[in-house]
Order: sequence, then structure tokens, then C-alpha cells
Amino acid sequence: MTIQEIRDYLSRYFDTVELVGNAEEPITGPAKIETAVKGQVSFIANEKYIRYLGLTGASLVIVNRSLPLDEFSHRTSFIKVRDPYTAFVFLLQKFAKPRTVTAEGIAATAVIGRDVSIGDGVSIGNYAVIGDRCSIGSNTVIGDHSVLLHDVSIGCNSVFFPGVICYNGTVFGDRVVIHSGSVIGSDGFGFAPQADGSYVKIPQMGIVEIGDDVEIGANTTIDRATMGSTVISNGAKIDNLVQVAHNCRIGDHTVIAAQAGISGSVTIGKQCMIGGQAGFAGHLELADRIQVAAKAGISKSFLQPGAVLRGVPAQIMRDQLKQEATLRGMGAMKEKIDRLEAELKELKQRS
Amino acid sequence: MTIQEIRDYLSRYFDTVELVGNAEEPITGPAKIETAVKGQVSFIANEKYIRYLGLTGASLVIVNRSLPLDEFSHRTSFIKVRDPYTAFVFLLQKFAKPRTVTAEGIAATAVIGRDVSIGDGVSIGNYAVIGDRCSIGSNTVIGDHSVLLHDVSIGCNSVFFPGVICYNGTVFGDRVVIHSGSVIGSDGFGFAPQADGSYVKIPQMGIVEIGDDVEIGANTTIDRATMGSTVISNGAKIDNLVQVAHNCRIGDHTVIAAQAGISGSVTIGKQCMIGGQAGFAGHLELADRIQVAAKAGISKSFLQPGAVLRGVPAQIMRDQLKQEATLRGMGAMKEKIDRLEAELKELKQRS
Amino acid sequence: MTIQEIRDYLSRYFDTVELVGNAEEPITGPAKIETAVKGQVSFIANEKYIRYLGLTGASLVIVNRSLPLDEFSHRTSFIKVRDPYTAFVFLLQKFAKPRTVTAEGIAATAVIGRDVSIGDGVSIGNYAVIGDRCSIGSNTVIGDHSVLLHDVSIGCNSVFFPGVICYNGTVFGDRVVIHSGSVIGSDGFGFAPQADGSYVKIPQMGIVEIGDDVEIGANTTIDRATMGSTVISNGAKIDNLVQVAHNCRIGDHTVIAAQAGISGSVTIGKQCMIGGQAGFAGHLELADRIQVAAKAGISKSFLQPGAVLRGVPAQIMRDQLKQEATLRGMGAMKEKIDRLEAELKELKQRS
Repeated sequence: MTIQEIRDYLSRYFDTVELVGNAEEPITGPAKIETAVKGQVSFIANEKYIRYLGLTGASLVIVNRSLPLDEFSHRTSFIKVRDPYTAFVFLLQKFAKPRTVTAEGIAATAVIGRDVSIGDGVSIGNYAVIGDRCSIGSNTVIGDHSVLLHDVSIGCNSVFFPGVICYNGTVFGDRVVIHSGSVIGSDGFGFAPQADGSYVKIPQMGIVEIGDDVEIGANTTIDRATMGSTVISNGAKIDNLVQVAHNCRIGDHTVIAAQAGISGSVTIGKQCMIGGQAGFAGHLELADRIQVAAKAGISKSFLQPGAVLRGVPAQIMRDQLKQEATLRGMGAMKEKIDRLEAELKELKQRS
Repeated sequence: MTIQEIRDYLSRYFDTVELVGNAEEPITGPAKIETAVKGQVSFIANEKYIRYLGLTGASLVIVNRSLPLDEFSHRTSFIKVRDPYTAFVFLLQKFAKPRTVTAEGIAATAVIGRDVSIGDGVSIGNYAVIGDRCSIGSNTVIGDHSVLLHDVSIGCNSVFFPGVICYNGTVFGDRVVIHSGSVIGSDGFGFAPQADGSYVKIPQMGIVEIGDDVEIGANTTIDRATMGSTVISNGAKIDNLVQVAHNCRIGDHTVIAAQAGISGSVTIGKQCMIGGQAGFAGHLELADRIQVAAKAGISKSFLQPGAVLRGVPAQIMRDQLKQEATLRGMGAMKEKIDRLEAELKELKQRS
Repeated sequence: MTIQEIRDYLSRYFDTVELVGNAEEPITGPAKIETAVKGQVSFIANEKYIRYLGLTGASLVIVNRSLPLDEFSHRTSFIKVRDPYTAFVFLLQKFAKPRTVTAEGIAATAVIGRDVSIGDGVSIGNYAVIGDRCSIGSNTVIGDHSVLLHDVSIGCNSVFFPGVICYNGTVFGDRVVIHSGSVIGSDGFGFAPQADGSYVKIPQMGIVEIGDDVEIGANTTIDRATMGSTVISNGAKIDNLVQVAHNCRIGDHTVIAAQAGISGSVTIGKQCMIGGQAGFAGHLELADRIQVAAKAGISKSFLQPGAVLRGVPAQIMRDQLKQEATLRGMGAMKEKIDRLEAELKELKQRS
């Protein structure tokens, strides 16, 4: 791929793509600016990396249109766009080799139940088990050892990596990606306490519904609803080892980082960002575009869109930072009190 | 099922079950009070939901004997019991369709080791692997892809969902439920530090023992003991993604919420409730009926039964709430100190 | 095995192994000092267990050379070494029965891809799937149901317990142990935000590289790098349910306890100890031999070797303990301020 071809490829995504340098030079792949060598393309999205421009071996660097970098143009070619980070992501997609999750077609060892509907171009891996009445949309790939219990429905162009387990009735949209070891639709954690201290299990009769363009990481668990549905809406992205309890609703394009835990019946709005190891008490609600810091403990609803939350129990970040600052100033406060006490004592003796 | 039949069914569990309304009306299933329609049964266990009584479409509502609800009896039928929540749970059990974890019988693709004992009515799923000398009690179901290494013993009427892995020697009681992806009996995390900074692995020679009526969620890990047993006692309920380290002992009917982590050699009493993402340092003990708040960090033993713990490091909740309140009052405290300082200065100048 | 044979065995590891007692007595196995009976060997590494010496039934106790224990030598035999804990670990290894992860040889049901290289003495379990061009070194054991996608390379003498999943291209050294349910090489969590609130997936083109003598617990997830490698260096030990994100580098002999979470591009030095449920923000660095307390939240780099970190956000432990102490003293501080205020008021009235 030449630099000119890269420019043309990026023109599909950006209105203005300016090329400075040698259009004919071949580019073999992407690399980080610190490690790139001749023939590779890199990018700078953050000004603090500009210092690498005099050092990098990259033949091409994707940069922001507004950066004045022409002093380096004798060393390397540039492509200037509005959003060099996203441009580089598109280039990564271009250079990424297609990944083989499992061989094409339906493995001889896959167990397919009764009344299963399988679209064109579907691949099902070794030892996968597809329950009765499941439906798998066209071009979807089910990895080795994945298990769908009965009545699971998956849309088109989705990828289940090996070892995903879906309980009965789970519904997935199109272009969904589920990583290995995740369990979708396991029973919600519901038990009714009895007078003798024991518990009676509350049947978990609902399902999990997952929208389009959702990606779920490895070893994450999403529990089915007690009644109704646990819902992961379109475009949501969930990292590894996350817990989503029964009856939660996660809004469109909300992102949840690793090891976060969402208790039962929590509703999270659209385009929220939930930090790693954050935790939510049950039955609360977050508005749209709320950001939750890593390790925060959300103990009540926050209904103001765009709020930034932090701490345990979580507060609006401004308040929480003020409290942290006061905390850091407590040593000084203690000294001041001791000094006031001494002065007062002296004053009393004098008077 | 008619309302009369529901009344009769609940009479098996409660001494007094009073019916107000149309005994002959058929009921097709359960629903939440907010969404129930004609033909459905719902319940009210919390007074704040009484407001839905004028709105719900439910044909039958299970309520507390003591609630004066007769003004609504022209809209809907009532069944009055001492504990409407538990009554509704029993109804959910009645209406829940039987779930097929795997087909009846032993799948042709299951691998059964030597000297395995299998009770009547056992089902073993596709590609399950049962090691030598395992024992599986009557009516137990082992889901697809579950793996029992050698010498695992499981009681009667238990359900292992697909993809459960048990290391050698694990012992389970009767009526146990294990959800997908959980790993029982993996090695405890024990390494002896050497002078050169490296570690020598400490062989983990013990086992895991799990009592009757235990339920374990998805992707939870319970490590085998170094010597002896890690013990999960009768009736304990453990949620998803929980870590129970080697040599722990979890008491009868103790409940542990998702992502909690119990370090090695911790002993937790009976009927405790451990919140989500709580963590325990090693080698400590909790008395019976202790409640640990979500995200708490237990750093020492608490031996007073029924204590409520909260915070990091965890304290008795009363103390911890007081500390949180003082923390919130620190801004005011700082202002007061500054005012005292100014007054003192003025006083000194005067004197 | 006689006590004399135990002495001889330990002499392989320690320069000085002193035996006090009956060299001919047979020893059948190890046990804890509290529960040991006649014929068993136990150890005391901590002075607070010396009180068990008058009670234990153990026939042999491994003790520190420096402890004056001869008053008990009529009850039990002793072996005295420099490091009784490590000596006992070596004895555990001696007494541990060999564990059968899977039957010897390559199971008939294992699926082996094209151009796979398999060393001498390799065992591959039931239903395991080995992708094209994988390489498995001699004497390595791949448990039942483990899946290696294409181009995975594993060294010699390693053990993969059942149900481990490795994505394509993962590289493992020699003597590696991976416990069940762990997922190695899953996609890093990288998405480029778009103007409309949606995300474009950033292809995760790198791999995971794992060194020699690494042990990884159950249900842990280690993500592949975006470009380059996520690296777990020689001798590192990682517990259950740990998250290691893309592009992290974990140093030699670093130990990470359960449920810790390491965000993307974090570099941790050698011989660090990371506590359970600790969390790391992305793109930061820890020097060698740093200790991170359980539940700490590391929000910036710490470059001083050997530092001890604690709290959220984490601070050097000394500072953090001081802050905790001040916090505990706040009630007293408030009382003092109120008293000063009263005295000042009185003084003003007088003057």
C-alpha cells in the first residue's frame, strides 16, 4: 500500500485529507511513534508526542491538520486530518489480518438441536452446542466450545469467541462480539430469606436482550431478569470480568470498564462511561453521558446528564475533590488549632 | 390455574391464606405490579408500591394480611398472607417452565472415566468429561462441556450448568446449583518466597467441600485448601465472579454478592451477608449474622454476632457513618478555626 | 518415608539440616501443627505456634535452627533448618500425589490443526482444540476442553488445566501453569469515540507473551496488545479473576493477588506484590519491589523501588496511615475547637 493509497482510503472517512511528502513510498504496516521504522505508518494525536518527530523512523505520520510540523517534512511524510487518532484506527482496520476464530462452515462435531435456523455463511466451531429452536443470522461465527442453550437468537455478522455460554432465551442483535468465557443469561442472584435463616430461590424467569454493535469482553457475566429482560442496548461496550445483575438496563453506547459491578435493577443512561472496579448499589438510575470514575461506589441515583462521579460513596467530582483536598489539609489544620490553643492560654494567663 | 387453585397452593406454605375476590378467574402467569395485565398475578411487599393498586391491570395481587386494601377490591382480587414476597416466590416457582439444561440421559459424546458411580435419573450433557472414580447422585444434571477431574463426588438433585470445571477431589452435597464458568477446586495461591526473589510453589493438597443447598454463580472461583478443606457450608449462596481462596470456611446460609473476594483461611460465620466487591484480608474471622457493606475492606476479625460493617478498613457501621459525617463537616470546621484565629488576633491586639 | 529419609531429602536444599529424635520413625504425610497426628510431619515458622508443641500429635516438626525447643524433644522429633516454611513446602512437594490433569497421550477427540508441532511426552485432553501452526513443547499437558487458536506457542513442562482459552499468536515459556477458565489474548478494550456518540473498534493486532515459570489462576483475563505485546515476565504469579489489560508489562517474579485490575499500558517492575482488588489507572509505571495494599487505587506512577502503597488514591503507606490516624482523631479535634471557642468567648466578655 502506498502513501497515496492510504490517503485515498482515509478520504472515504474524512472530507479533507492533506498529503505532504512522498506519495509513492510503500507502507507495510502500522506502529507506535516510538518504535516505528522505515516503511511503517504512525500517528500523533497528543502534542506531547511531537518530540518523537525528530526521532521516529516512520515513513508516514498521521497528524492533526492544525499542527505546524513542516519542519519535519524532510524526514517523514505526513497526512493531515481533523482526527488523526480515528484515522489511525481506520488504518489499523485496513492492515489487520483477518482473524480465524474457527474454520468456515459447520464443524462435524458441532451439536445442532432441533428446529434451529442457520443463516448463510454461518460458521460453527468444534464441539459447539446449539440448543433447540436457536436462530443464528447470516455470516455469524460461533467459536469452538460455545454453548447456546435452547431458544437463543443471534443476529447477523456477529462473532462469538470460543467458550461463550448463553442460557436459554438470550437475544442478540447484529454485529455483536462476545469474547471467550463470558456467560450470558445466568440466573439473577435472588433468594427470599426465611424465618429459619435459610433462603428460597426466586426463579429467574426473564431473559437477557443484547442490542446491535455490542461488544462484551472475556469472562464477563450478565444475568437474566427475574421477570422481563436485562437489557444491553445498541453500541454498548463492556470489558472483561464485569458483572451485570438481573433486570439492569444499560443505555446505547455506554462503556463499562473491567471488573465493574452493576447490581440488580440499575438503569444506566446513554453514552455513559463507567470506570474499572466501579460498583453500583441496586435499584438506582444514572442519566445520560454520566462518567463514573474507577473504583467509585454509586449508592444513589444521579439524574443530571453529564455529571462526573467519584469516590465511595460517589459524589459529584467537584465536591469529592474538595473533600479530598480538605482531607490533605487536615495536618495543617491540626497544627493551627494547637497554636491557637497555646496563644489562648497565654492570653488567659496575661489577662 | 384459577385464583382458588393459587390460594390452595399457597396454603401448603402458609397457615392463613385469605382470598378476597373472584375465585374462579384464571391466572396465566406472574408479572411486576407496574406492568401486569389482566390474567396475571402480582404482589406488593412494600408500602410504596400501594400506589400502583389503582393502576395495575393484574387480576390478582398478593398482599400483606395487615394492609387495608379493600377499597381496591372492586378492581382486583387479593390473596392476603403473612409474607407476600415469599408467597410470590413460591408462585414464580409454580409458573416457571422447567428449564432444560441438557437432554435427559447420558450424551453419547460424554466421556465417562473408570469406576464412576452414576445414580438413577442422572443426565450428563454433550462433551462433558467425568473423571475416574467420580460419583454422581440420583437426578443430578451435569451440563454440556462440564469437566469433573478425578474423584469428584456430587450428591442428588443437583444442577451443574454448562462449562463448570471441578478439580480432583471436590465434594458436593445434595440440591447444589453451580452456574456456568465457575471453577471449583483450583489451586490456592501459595508460593514461598526465596532469597533470590523467585518463588517455590506450595503444593495445594487439600480439596473443596460444598454442602447441601448451595448455589454458586457464574465464573466464580473457589480454591482448594493447601491441606484439609475449603468449606462452603449448607445453604450458602455465592454470586458471580466471587473469589474464595484456599482454606476459607463459609458458614451455613451465608450470602456473598458478586465480585467479593475472600482471602485465604478466612472463617465467616452463619447467616452472614457479604456485599458486592467487599474484600477480606487473610486469616481472620467473622461471627454469625454479620453484614458487610458493598466495597468494604475487612482487615481484622469481628467477633460480635450481627455486627454491621462498612468502609475501608471496615468499622462497625455506626462509627463509620459518624466518621463520614465528620468528614462532610470538615469544611465548616475549617471556617470556624479561621474565625477563632481572627478573634484571637483582635483580642491580643486589644489586650 | 522415614525421618532420616526426610532429613536426607531436605539436605538437597539446605546446607545444614539437624535431626533431633528418632531417625527410623516412618512418616506418612504432612499436616498442620494443630491437627497433626502420629506419623505426620508438621512445621513451625512463626513463634506464636510454639504453644502447639506441647499438644501436637505430630511425629516430626520442622523448626527454625535458632529456636530452643529441646524441652519438647521427648514428645516429638525435630528437624532444624534455616527456613522451616520453605523446607515444609519442599516436603509437601515430596508427599503430593501426582495429579492427573488428563490421560497420557493425545486424546482421540482432540482436534489438532495443520502444521502443529508437538514435543515428546505431550498430553492433550478430551475435546481440546489446537489451532494451525501451534507449537507445544515436550512434556506439556493441555487439559480437556482447552482451546488454542492459531499460532499459539507453548514451551516445555507446562500445564494448562481444563478449559483454558488462548487467542491466536499467544506465546508461553517453559514450566507455565494456567488454571481453568483463564482467557489469554482476548482483545484489548479499545474503541475510538465518534462525534455521534458511537464507537469504532480499534483492532487489537498485538499478542500476549508469557515468560517461564509463570502461574496464572482461574478465570483470569489477559488481553492482547493493540500493537506489540502484553508481557508477563518470568516467574510472575497471577491469582484468580485478575484483569491485565492491553500492552501491560508485568516484571519478573511479581505477584498479583485475586481480582486486581491493571489498566492498559501499565508497566510494573520486578518482584512487586500487588494486593487483591487493587486497581491501576492506565499508562503508569511502578518501580521494582513495590508493594501495593489490597484495594489500593494507583492513580499515578511510583518510581521509588520498594515503596509501600495504600489507599485510594494510593499514597506512600506512611503518609496514608498518618492521614487515616488524623481522620480518626477528627472527633477529638472538633471537641477541642468547640472548647477553644467557648474559652475565647469567655475571655472576650471579660476583657
